[in-house]
Amino acid sequence: RRPKTDFGSEQSERFRLRFPPSLQAMPSTHSLSRRGASLLDVSPMAPYIHEHMVRAADADPNDPERYIGLCVAENLQMWDILEPQLNRNRNVQRGSVAYDAMIGSQNLREQIASFASEHVWGRSVDPDRVIVLAGGGSILETLFYVISSPGDGVLVPTPSYAGYWADLETRDNLKVVPVHTSSEDGFKLSPALLESAYIDAGVPVSALLITNPDNPTGRMMPSKDMNAAIQWARSHDLHVVVNEIYALSVHGDEPYEPVGRVIDNLATDVHEVWGFSKDFAMSGLRCGVMTSNNTDVLDAISELAYWSLVSGDTQHLLAGMLRNTEWTETYLREMRSRLRRSYDVTTSALDAADIPYVDGDAGLFLLADMRRFMDEATWDAEDRLWRKVLDEAAVNLTPGSACHIGEPGFMRICFATEPPEVVARAISRFAAILNNVCVKDT
Amino acid sequence: RRPKTDFGSEQSERFRLRFPPSLQAMPSTHSLSRRGASLLDVSPMAPYIHEHMVRAADADPNDPERYIGLCVAENLQMWDILEPQLNRNRNVQRGSVAYDAMIGSQNLREQIASFASEHVWGRSVDPDRVIVLAGGGSILETLFYVISSPGDGVLVPTPSYAGYWADLETRDNLKVVPVHTSSEDGFKLSPALLESAYIDAGVPVSALLITNPDNPTGRMMPSKDMNAAIQWARSHDLHVVVNEIYALSVHGDEPYEPVGRVIDNLATDVHEVWGFSKDFAMSGLRCGVMTSNNTDVLDAISELAYWSLVSGDTQHLLAGMLRNTEWTETYLREMRSRLRRSYDVTTSALDAADIPYVDGDAGLFLLADMRRFMDEATWDAEDRLWRKVLDEAAVNLTPGSACHIGEPGFMRICFATEPPEVVARAISRFAAILNNVCVKDT
Repeated sequence: RRPKTDFGSEQSERFRLRFPPSLQAMPSTHSLSRRGASLLDVSPMAPYIHEHMVRAADADPNDPERYIGLCVAENLQMWDILEPQLNRNRNVQRGSVAYDAMIGSQNLREQIASFASEHVWGRSVDPDRVIVLAGGGSILETLFYVISSPGDGVLVPTPSYAGYWADLETRDNLKVVPVHTSSEDGFKLSPALLESAYIDAGVPVSALLITNPDNPTGRMMPSKDMNAAIQWARSHDLHVVVNEIYALSVHGDEPYEPVGRVIDNLATDVHEVWGFSKDFAMSGLRCGVMTSNNTDVLDAISELAYWSLVSGDTQHLLAGMLRNTEWTETYLREMRSRLRRSYDVTTSALDAADIPYVDGDAGLFLLADMRRFMDEATWDAEDRLWRKVLDEAAVNLTPGSACHIGEPGFMRICFATEPPEVVARAISRFAAILNNVCVKDT
Repeated sequence: RRPKTDFGSEQSERFRLRFPPSLQAMPSTHSLSRRGASLLDVSPMAPYIHEHMVRAADADPNDPERYIGLCVAENLQMWDILEPQLNRNRNVQRGSVAYDAMIGSQNLREQIASFASEHVWGRSVDPDRVIVLAGGGSILETLFYVISSPGDGVLVPTPSYAGYWADLETRDNLKVVPVHTSSEDGFKLSPALLESAYIDAGVPVSALLITNPDNPTGRMMPSKDMNAAIQWARSHDLHVVVNEIYALSVHGDEPYEPVGRVIDNLATDVHEVWGFSKDFAMSGLRCGVMTSNNTDVLDAISELAYWSLVSGDTQHLLAGMLRNTEWTETYLREMRSRLRRSYDVTTSALDAADIPYVDGDAGLFLLADMRRFMDEATWDAEDRLWRKVLDEAAVNLTPGSACHIGEPGFMRICFATEPPEVVARAISRFAAILNNVCVKDT
């Protein structure tokens, strides 16, 4: 049994560890600052995360009826490929234990520039324009600190990555302004939707944050839509942040089209975020990456870098990994092929169960349409459905509410946390229960 | 020659890396937020740091006349002891690449609790009360975020660690209120000095930050003075943060007396900071530590932890190191013995040169009294003296102004960045120049 806190977490729902009640019995606690106390007022942990922590810790891996968590966007299917490379040449270097450049070692930034120019950004990026910080969350938090002012709104199309609310609102004091897209047209983002959200924001809006490939829909945004969104943002003088954290996790036939190829000129208003957590299946090593043409943005972030530094030893580890281009090619090929198989097995199981889903191109998840299993189109009904799948089938999905979807009844299925066969078994399990008892229109 | 950005930095003066001017030529930069732009307004890099970066990169290690930097508080004399332990059992663990608890893995926090309870804190601390973040700077920054409100003052006795200004003022929007102690009574901190600074602060004061053992004096605060300072703080209902980052770097005969032993009851108002950077000579691995009896403080910090996470692989590395108690005993013995030798050689060289200094007990530095080499007791004269030592002797000391000392003429000599013989040579070098040309009263 894993120790209590040795749980898998994820960028999107960062598990909190509240200290045990036994420690809270001390009388007359010296009081916190108001901003400190407000951190204690956060709403209780999302139920699906709480359930995941409790149940994953208790699950017996040999029990076919065991709990299956499909609610965390981690790729846990690549360890056999990662391990030999990571454990090659593992000597801690003398330079790794001493201070180095705050924005990442020259060595790592050169390796990232070389690798990501080819595989992620689709254009040649100078290492001097690359910043490395302790995880994608730190990149987003510092980037928005320097481009947006307290109280500003940031437009975020939904369905969305759940973690943006914490990344932008907690320390940066921004307000996420959701731009709800609709299932009716495949969650398409349009200037009309952006304009409407912008007008109704109620706060000054200073930036647009786009995730591409998208979480949780698993779709790549058509270049035409990306172009239109950025042109719209430019017409309002907004910064645009494109989070390409899943750029390499493509399982469809089409290659990913990086924003640097979609837009003629990224100028100084479009900033790109990437990292190792998703595409290299190593969320625990905490290495997020960004690049921008805006030197002021880079300079200002470098002033904040000291409080989000990456371990020098981990930087050395990752630089060595990227330098081994033969291995990275193998890794990418195998990673995509496994994602493809996971996606195919998952969608076959959903097809067999007659559960619709959004066709995906990329990412570690897909979005299932489970509206027909609800007795009413409400968030309460969605919550009951999620709870039923969990309690009766021991399968944990990410409810659409956590992804801030504009309409109830969708669930995110993370298919890379478990081997494909286990994902298929999980789907069969809950489909049997749902189809038996509450089918409305099959 | 080392690449441009592969310089040693230090917690106290975090080198900034501004992007090259060639990258700044882009027209019509999309503008930053006000708080972002204010990061660009920081005063130019401290001259002694700038000089260190430039000269260290150019120094030929085989040249006896080479540049010698004695201005950075790093212990670079322990690599032969560290290397075999760090490179033992270096396999990256499967669990290390996945998400784990935000405040540090259970394993690492248990090892730290066990080690630091015995060696640092002098009392038994529960692992559930230990928080691990990416470096001591991140610990301080998040801790003060939750205990102090924007605009609050924090009392900091001087001479002081230079980095507190950035740690408290940049993101936390606090104001450091210096409590100037005087060389006349050996930089003794007293309730009268605290009271005076408190009254004259001009802002509401919410906390007192004490460094013990102290940087830059290298002295351990007498228990009586520590007790008096904390009692004074309690009479004003302040939080007290005791930064014990040099707790193990003791080279004198007396053992360090941790605040947990000095004070009967740490209650919920005294918080302790420690880390691996100084005492384990690994500032580049970024692992800071704190403990507190205040569960609200721990809970609130855990809400901020996500943006300052330590690499899972580095956590594994450090947990394994601490588990090897035979090695840690050897390390501590050897580390202290080398510090002692460095201190002895350094003070002998100063004695021979007739340069007074503050008798030290701990730390990687001592404070030399170079007032007699100045033609007037001004900061300009101190700056000229520092520049003369640098230009004519190629030795870089930390000027007292950087340590916010209340009176000009003191210089910090970091004696653990170079082998003792090199430190002695550096002192002879600048002493010969100073004693020849501007001795006033030998």
